[in-house]
Amino acid sequence: MSTVVQKYGGTSVSTIDKIKFIAKLLAKRKKAGDNLVVVVSAMGNTTDKLIELANNVSTNPSKRELDMLLSTGEQITSALLAMTLKDIGYDAIALTGFQAGIKTEDKHTRASILDIEINKVKNHLKEDKIVIVAGFQGIDKNGNITTLGRGGSDTTAVALAAKLNCPCEIYTDVEGIYGVDPKIYPNAKKLDYISYDEMLEMASLGAKVIETRAVELASKYKVPIYIALNTGSVSGTYIKELDESMEEKVITGLTTSDDDLMVTINNVLYDIKNICYIFNRLAEMDINIDMISQTAPIYGYVNISFTAPKDSKNLILKLVDELKAKMKDIEIDIQENITKISVVGLGMRTQSGVAAKLFKIFSDNNIQFKQVTTSEIRISYTINTKDKEKAVFKIAEEFNI
Amino acid sequence: MSTVVQKYGGTSVSTIDKIKFIAKLLAKRKKAGDNLVVVVSAMGNTTDKLIELANNVSTNPSKRELDMLLSTGEQITSALLAMTLKDIGYDAIALTGFQAGIKTEDKHTRASILDIEINKVKNHLKEDKIVIVAGFQGIDKNGNITTLGRGGSDTTAVALAAKLNCPCEIYTDVEGIYGVDPKIYPNAKKLDYISYDEMLEMASLGAKVIETRAVELASKYKVPIYIALNTGSVSGTYIKELDESMEEKVITGLTTSDDDLMVTINNVLYDIKNICYIFNRLAEMDINIDMISQTAPIYGYVNISFTAPKDSKNLILKLVDELKAKMKDIEIDIQENITKISVVGLGMRTQSGVAAKLFKIFSDNNIQFKQVTTSEIRISYTINTKDKEKAVFKIAEEFNI
Repeated sequence: MSTVVQKYGGTSVSTIDKIKFIAKLLAKRKKAGDNLVVVVSAMGNTTDKLIELANNVSTNPSKRELDMLLSTGEQITSALLAMTLKDIGYDAIALTGFQAGIKTEDKHTRASILDIEINKVKNHLKEDKIVIVAGFQGIDKNGNITTLGRGGSDTTAVALAAKLNCPCEIYTDVEGIYGVDPKIYPNAKKLDYISYDEMLEMASLGAKVIETRAVELASKYKVPIYIALNTGSVSGTYIKELDESMEEKVITGLTTSDDDLMVTINNVLYDIKNICYIFNRLAEMDINIDMISQTAPIYGYVNISFTAPKDSKNLILKLVDELKAKMKDIEIDIQENITKISVVGLGMRTQSGVAAKLFKIFSDNNIQFKQVTTSEIRISYTINTKDKEKAVFKIAEEFNI
Repeated sequence: MSTVVQKYGGTSVSTIDKIKFIAKLLAKRKKAGDNLVVVVSAMGNTTDKLIELANNVSTNPSKRELDMLLSTGEQITSALLAMTLKDIGYDAIALTGFQAGIKTEDKHTRASILDIEINKVKNHLKEDKIVIVAGFQGIDKNGNITTLGRGGSDTTAVALAAKLNCPCEIYTDVEGIYGVDPKIYPNAKKLDYISYDEMLEMASLGAKVIETRAVELASKYKVPIYIALNTGSVSGTYIKELDESMEEKVITGLTTSDDDLMVTINNVLYDIKNICYIFNRLAEMDINIDMISQTAPIYGYVNISFTAPKDSKNLILKLVDELKAKMKDIEIDIQENITKISVVGLGMRTQSGVAAKLFKIFSDNNIQFKQVTTSEIRISYTINTKDKEKAVFKIAEEFNI
């Protein structure tokens, strides 16, 4: 009998009818002989509603109490799913994070899992129960309830699979991982498999199907992940280590993100202290920057550009005032209508010419790019948002994504 | 510095505005120098909504998972109240049942508290925190979440007060305990104090201001209870041991209940086995009966009457069929329009004539009663519901309740 960890996200359990549907799928799978550990998220938009309650009592809610509040969402789903299974004749037990032995750092709203006392889950599996675990939560060494941050249920599922040394199946409202967002490029092809590394580059760049931390964890412990539609009716995508049976594509996927703005600071006196000051202040203000580029110094001055999340705009405006007071000569430009477009593929490591091919596509189609950064398996550009669709279509066609 | 346990029920914390209001009251009290432990219920009708969810997935929801589900209601309120206090500058900490060290039997939906590891709460008080405890819940020896049944938050509050050796204040949406329900008798007088024993008789008979188990616990550990309006603006009622400073009234209160029906079984062959069988079956079917009366045998037959909750009517009808099959001669009558009316008073122990006075009131006003039962400090009658108002007015006037 094999063991599998499954995870169902918020949209998969958003109504009582959906919970009943999932229970039937689980019953079928259990009947087929599998040991099941099932991680669930909060129902639909429950977490958002709870956050709204918190924001109504405090502009800066206590994080410890926020975790206590938010963890109830998953607790409710897990209790309801276990009840439903028992109602249709399958023994099940619902466990909160602490009952499932999920130990985390003593850090609130985005704690990391330190360890799982996996015997708690194993003992219930031995009793032939379907074990339902409230995702997204754990307990710290002082007995405080912690949460793992948005998408934390993915991490819960992968961590349990790592401890149980079994595969992890993540059921969601999409059919799997696509090489490019089908909403932008209708001819997009679903991938049968993708390597951990490629998925990591794609996840952090906007393909919001699975939490990046969960993929990192899966990669570390070699947990094979299967992502598929929550109806179980269509084949999905495997995320696993690349093996020889997989054809190595040059470009596996293409992602875009409109979530960032681009800040350019012109005429910064070329002094390492100045540049260091800017990036230090950004870090101190907890502004998560990306796509840093700097021109070579001309007449003792440099221009610096970086992208940052649009929701940190107010913080950036504050910093702009601060910088202007400190560095007289600088000029600051903030562009909001930009899109980050990235192509990802393990093949880039061994096959050259991808960058050249991309530059040619941009040039042939008259698409201006503002910045370019590269990693071993990724090339990213910032372009004007108005050019996004054209760029996606041309690249996807050219690389058959 | 004195310590006090306060409890706020569901109607007192039903909205964010009400939670903010309670937080201000607590802040004022804390500023005045008191150590505060605050037990909260679920917001408004949250518990009912959760029960509805459970009933939607199962006709007979797993009790273990039901407890896990329902406990989230109080967890949410406690987190929100602690956040609110911190927001207005008062250090506070929210604790679930298990975090507050509340150990219960391993029995679901109506567990009793076995013990409280009170040092957990004491340590937070030492740190000068307002300790907010999620009411109604605890944890059993196997780490399962349990609940204490409806009204369990009162029990949580009194149990904490007993362990902390301090008084308990229960804030609610009524101004205190009345000798008779003001909705029925507008001239009803609020009591300044009432003894534990009187309160126990009144609570179990329908004055649904405080959970009976909580009063029992308070009586056992001599915890003084103060019940008052949640605005703190009107003086309430003390429930405590009767001391010599209190004037002993003959009749402290009068309660009525329309929740029962009366079953009469006529022509039961007078054989102890027959009668025993009937009451055994009632117990086996978990029908909570009250007001048992039996006529003296005539020609070898007796008539038996008892009252039972109206919601057990279906079970009773099932039993009726069973009894008719077994005992050929019997006739069964079920009356639903009956009211149980009870007068309660410690004074009855020493002063005679209360029963006589009551019989005279019934007689003078042409009120038929069907059954009468007495205890040391209580006399109860079943009457037709149509006579309820008349009976209440006449008795309340006569005894100045």
